[in-house]
Amino acid sequence: MISAAIVGGTGYTGIELIRLLSAHPEVSIDLLTSRSEAGTRADEIFPSLRGISDIVFSDLGDETLATLQQCDVVFFATPHGVAMQQAEALTEAGVKVIDLAADFRLQSLTDFEHWYQQSHACPELLKTAVYGLPEINRDKIANALVVGNPGCYPTTAILGLKPIIEAQNKQSKQLIESRIVIDAKSGVSGAGRQASLALNYAESTDNFKAYSVEGHRHLPEIEQGVAQLLDSQFSHRVRFLPHLVPMIRGMLSSIHMELTDAGALMDWQQVFEQSYASEQFIDVMPKGLYPDTRSVRASNRLRIAVHQDNERAELTVIVVQDNLVKGAAGQAVQNMNVMFGFDESLGLNFAPIVP
Amino acid sequence: MISAAIVGGTGYTGIELIRLLSAHPEVSIDLLTSRSEAGTRADEIFPSLRGISDIVFSDLGDETLATLQQCDVVFFATPHGVAMQQAEALTEAGVKVIDLAADFRLQSLTDFEHWYQQSHACPELLKTAVYGLPEINRDKIANALVVGNPGCYPTTAILGLKPIIEAQNKQSKQLIESRIVIDAKSGVSGAGRQASLALNYAESTDNFKAYSVEGHRHLPEIEQGVAQLLDSQFSHRVRFLPHLVPMIRGMLSSIHMELTDAGALMDWQQVFEQSYASEQFIDVMPKGLYPDTRSVRASNRLRIAVHQDNERAELTVIVVQDNLVKGAAGQAVQNMNVMFGFDESLGLNFAPIVP
Amino acid sequence: MISAAIVGGTGYTGIELIRLLSAHPEVSIDLLTSRSEAGTRADEIFPSLRGISDIVFSDLGDETLATLQQCDVVFFATPHGVAMQQAEALTEAGVKVIDLAADFRLQSLTDFEHWYQQSHACPELLKTAVYGLPEINRDKIANALVVGNPGCYPTTAILGLKPIIEAQNKQSKQLIESRIVIDAKSGVSGAGRQASLALNYAESTDNFKAYSVEGHRHLPEIEQGVAQLLDSQFSHRVRFLPHLVPMIRGMLSSIHMELTDAGALMDWQQVFEQSYASEQFIDVMPKGLYPDTRSVRASNRLRIAVHQDNERAELTVIVVQDNLVKGAAGQAVQNMNVMFGFDESLGLNFAPIVP
Amino acid sequence: MISAAIVGGTGYTGIELIRLLSAHPEVSIDLLTSRSEAGTRADEIFPSLRGISDIVFSDLGDETLATLQQCDVVFFATPHGVAMQQAEALTEAGVKVIDLAADFRLQSLTDFEHWYQQSHACPELLKTAVYGLPEINRDKIANALVVGNPGCYPTTAILGLKPIIEAQNKQSKQLIESRIVIDAKSGVSGAGRQASLALNYAESTDNFKAYSVEGHRHLPEIEQGVAQLLDSQFSHRVRFLPHLVPMIRGMLSSIHMELTDAGALMDWQQVFEQSYASEQFIDVMPKGLYPDTRSVRASNRLRIAVHQDNERAELTVIVVQDNLVKGAAGQAVQNMNVMFGFDESLGLNFAPIVP
Repeated sequence: MISAAIVGGTGYTGIELIRLLSAHPEVSIDLLTSRSEAGTRADEIFPSLRGISDIVFSDLGDETLATLQQCDVVFFATPHGVAMQQAEALTEAGVKVIDLAADFRLQSLTDFEHWYQQSHACPELLKTAVYGLPEINRDKIANALVVGNPGCYPTTAILGLKPIIEAQNKQSKQLIESRIVIDAKSGVSGAGRQASLALNYAESTDNFKAYSVEGHRHLPEIEQGVAQLLDSQFSHRVRFLPHLVPMIRGMLSSIHMELTDAGALMDWQQVFEQSYASEQFIDVMPKGLYPDTRSVRASNRLRIAVHQDNERAELTVIVVQDNLVKGAAGQAVQNMNVMFGFDESLGLNFAPIVP
Repeated sequence: MISAAIVGGTGYTGIELIRLLSAHPEVSIDLLTSRSEAGTRADEIFPSLRGISDIVFSDLGDETLATLQQCDVVFFATPHGVAMQQAEALTEAGVKVIDLAADFRLQSLTDFEHWYQQSHACPELLKTAVYGLPEINRDKIANALVVGNPGCYPTTAILGLKPIIEAQNKQSKQLIESRIVIDAKSGVSGAGRQASLALNYAESTDNFKAYSVEGHRHLPEIEQGVAQLLDSQFSHRVRFLPHLVPMIRGMLSSIHMELTDAGALMDWQQVFEQSYASEQFIDVMPKGLYPDTRSVRASNRLRIAVHQDNERAELTVIVVQDNLVKGAAGQAVQNMNVMFGFDESLGLNFAPIVP
Repeated sequence: MISAAIVGGTGYTGIELIRLLSAHPEVSIDLLTSRSEAGTRADEIFPSLRGISDIVFSDLGDETLATLQQCDVVFFATPHGVAMQQAEALTEAGVKVIDLAADFRLQSLTDFEHWYQQSHACPELLKTAVYGLPEINRDKIANALVVGNPGCYPTTAILGLKPIIEAQNKQSKQLIESRIVIDAKSGVSGAGRQASLALNYAESTDNFKAYSVEGHRHLPEIEQGVAQLLDSQFSHRVRFLPHLVPMIRGMLSSIHMELTDAGALMDWQQVFEQSYASEQFIDVMPKGLYPDTRSVRASNRLRIAVHQDNERAELTVIVVQDNLVKGAAGQAVQNMNVMFGFDESLGLNFAPIVP
Repeated sequence: MISAAIVGGTGYTGIELIRLLSAHPEVSIDLLTSRSEAGTRADEIFPSLRGISDIVFSDLGDETLATLQQCDVVFFATPHGVAMQQAEALTEAGVKVIDLAADFRLQSLTDFEHWYQQSHACPELLKTAVYGLPEINRDKIANALVVGNPGCYPTTAILGLKPIIEAQNKQSKQLIESRIVIDAKSGVSGAGRQASLALNYAESTDNFKAYSVEGHRHLPEIEQGVAQLLDSQFSHRVRFLPHLVPMIRGMLSSIHMELTDAGALMDWQQVFEQSYASEQFIDVMPKGLYPDTRSVRASNRLRIAVHQDNERAELTVIVVQDNLVKGAAGQAVQNMNVMFGFDESLGLNFAPIVP
């Protein structure tokens, strides 16, 4: 059993971590912190945890920091900018850090400072941090001290594009035209657990809208993910537009691409199937079937469908995941499994909740 | 054309009043106030009003008060306690007042102070105020200076019980046993337009709960309505329990009663049909049909069904309305129509929105 | 490992059984039948099962029957009237039967025939069948050959009333007045997985209604449950009125009772806490807290709150459960655990899904 | 007053026509037909119409046909293929026809036959039919005998592209690159009023999916609309991908384009504002504001926002409408107003329903 702490356990990724780690056979949650709820039992805030966990929120004071340093792993389910304040002290004490916010996602300091409007507290540590997409960085994650758990949208975008980019690299030929349109849709839980007029039920149900039309923080993260996969001879421009769907959980990204002549010669269904053949959490749908978000509800699976239309030179990739699981807490646990040498699916192999 | 003002137009009853009055052929909205949004166009807050109304929110300063006094009618779509501060000055200037909050609903000062935790600012005026249920107080409303627009739950409860209580009075016999259970359910808009964690979409959808289990402010209002209808020889005890339904608009009250032997001799379907035969907004469903809330969505209609089971001595009345229309703004407009001698249904005769 | 079969696996209780049993450490699902889907993989019908189960639907032909007879337990997730056709042959072969439909719930043949409009195929076997509420019949279930898994509403009603009735028996005094009003609300999945205009999204969302106002099949089951608990000196009359809530899963029953003078002397909070102190799946909420349905979403827990108001002589019990888990498939697995001597919570101890 | 008939009034466009025409000051609904519901009052099928309309469904027999021929206008709210069977007899009798299905939308017989899998019954009449987008074909509609009311998606797509294409024509320069991606999202009512497992509440809520990924019938209609606006020197390829949103009403199309260098020189906000300056039902949002679907709920308005990013060479147009109003029945009434010389907004100038 390893000893885990969750810093900032009052949000949706926090409670999802509690749910997942409580059922994980190799983990004990030994510390749970919250500034606002210190002293309160977690099951008072989340009655669904009654009978599941009797843990009490601690404040993040000096004493707590000492306790944190005795854990094996600390999850930060906090707002952007918190993990980077604590990460150095923790890693120096030999504690592994998994940040579910953005502090360790972008490797460019300029991008981080531009999109998150703050300086980075530990740029040196950032250089050694690993972007926590196991399907891409599995080996690096296994040895990482700090993992930046990916944003929800980037997870769908990067995993939806990976087989294409890798095929293009391999063929050394442009297979899709430069411009990629990612039209993405997320359930409301992606906005976090907060009092907000815009998120009030009567404002957000029976409604649909685009948001961050002029630029979303996940765009540079997607661009970074694409750039890291891409051979230097190629370049792609990404248009990323997110929308808000009146549903609790779930995310679907529709990725629109244009095939080059060389691209039309590929069998993209096969490319995707081969690319993900050995991945436990990536499911490539059979040709002609398209996934809906509920098919992954409350699970760590991500499903992908590919549609190729050579006549119209169209390649469309559709990706679904649960934004709180594969898009956040589940992926964090998957990263933890890799970091500690557990079976990668340990504690994550449950079925989606349907209906 | 009469001149109307809406004080506090940023809530759901406010925008509903704007919607209804904008289409009313005899009313001009000449003033709209909001402390927080003074200077802002209403259609900036509510883009649905773009092209419908170009009115701008005013602050409620001295100048505005002078303007208010030149209106024919002022609607208060404010929190409890605001209308009673302004009502005397307005009525003295000959302006009619319709308060959509609770300041003029309860005639007992003790009840008002107990349930709303404040003293009443104009107890003398309260004595002359009329409870604005046209189906009960039509004549008094016609001559009222101040109308207390009923709460949403009491509208369903009192109108659902009126035919029974009147029949009992007429028969001079107890027709139902003393105890009445009103199990009521409301859509989320009833909680108002507010930033609130409990009302966050991800918290309130796919969910159902009871609330105010230990006592709700609408209970004394229901009890007052029942008492006023009831001959003094009878008394009834009401258990009122509200629930929150994951829907925007709509309210359904299930009223459970026990028939006495005399009550079982009545034909309750007929009693209800006769009682409401001449009411334009009250629809008694044919025997065996039960209304759903969407059948009145966005309309001023209230539908009632009666189920009588003599073998089990059960009488069940089911009442639906749109909580924002017949339960609030529509009823306020209906009251205005009565107060100004317009056809009672003027501007209110539109069809529900289905689907 | 025991060998289990699910007859009729294409409905919501069917897929929920697959979900639960796939994760159960002591069960292997060896047969899954469906007339309409014979030959099809379950994960074609339910893509959420991709990667979870590769089982294929079989037809219920002679060969299948022979296979069924080699299983240890057969779950019937079929319409009413199917299990009773097969149960004798199975029990004679030593196979235990758990019927999730109504064939073995009502012990009165007259009631069964009246409410389900068919004759019973095996009245002798019915006499030995056990009503599968472990919190009431645990010992009988342990030795049962055939278990009638309770209806969803009766589970909430009977468990919500049990502590009261038992206290009344113990005191040998009437503690609540005769009439009990159960105003119940269910999510849409309770209506089953079917093509239906009334259940179309556009018809049933943003809507609320009562149904089966004139009588629901779960009423005689509730009455039977009450009668079996009750000492013969007492009698109660139950009014049961169900409503449809626009949510997928979840059920809440509001039980309204009137306290006698003797009843007002009781501390009902304490009575409930003591009554369920040793039950793993029954959670009595602390005084003053009331459960919402999502606090049990996708879990086998049932939460109860008690509100006592002596001044008004009111006793209100509020019960929530997931209609597909504790109200159906989860309870069936709980029964199976009892029947086979496993830990009663084996495979059922997962956390609710929130948000 | 003109005399109108609605053929096929049991679907969602049918009831929406009844709602709109009942309130129209210049129209009397004199006939309403339905094969399946002949003899039934409309308000039995749609209780929301109780007190609004007492019309009874007629069968579409010979007698009815004679009555139809005495109307001024006949709306077909029928499945594809019905209107074309009746249109000749009606137009010969001087009756104007508005078909809300697809019989008179596509001017290419080949396209019609390919996408709708049937021969056209009156190809000669089709040549004279006018595509009923008043913002494009107002003059032709005024003189049309037969109007093909546009599909819901094409209404958003064509009106979202019109200012761009016209600007391009005017400049005689390619302003956007050839490929246009239309990523569209619709509420569930777009699928019609039908019993369907896929549309069951428990299947479609808390869920999101793409559909018709391999080709949707509205694609050729969009392509036709674009081609008709476009000068022959230009050509565009459209990728159209629809998605299903768990909401009743509402449609949002996100139109993704790439600016050419010449295109980047344009002020697209201004182009759109000027293009629609005189349109009563088209609302171009102020720069930086983006519409949500509820801002047009139950109204005939269509709102458009434009986002231009020269650095990334991106032009994004976002269009919302109520699929049943501007996307169907409201547009049909708007066409009728044009055809009969009424004010174009007569009976259509009501506010959206918010919340």
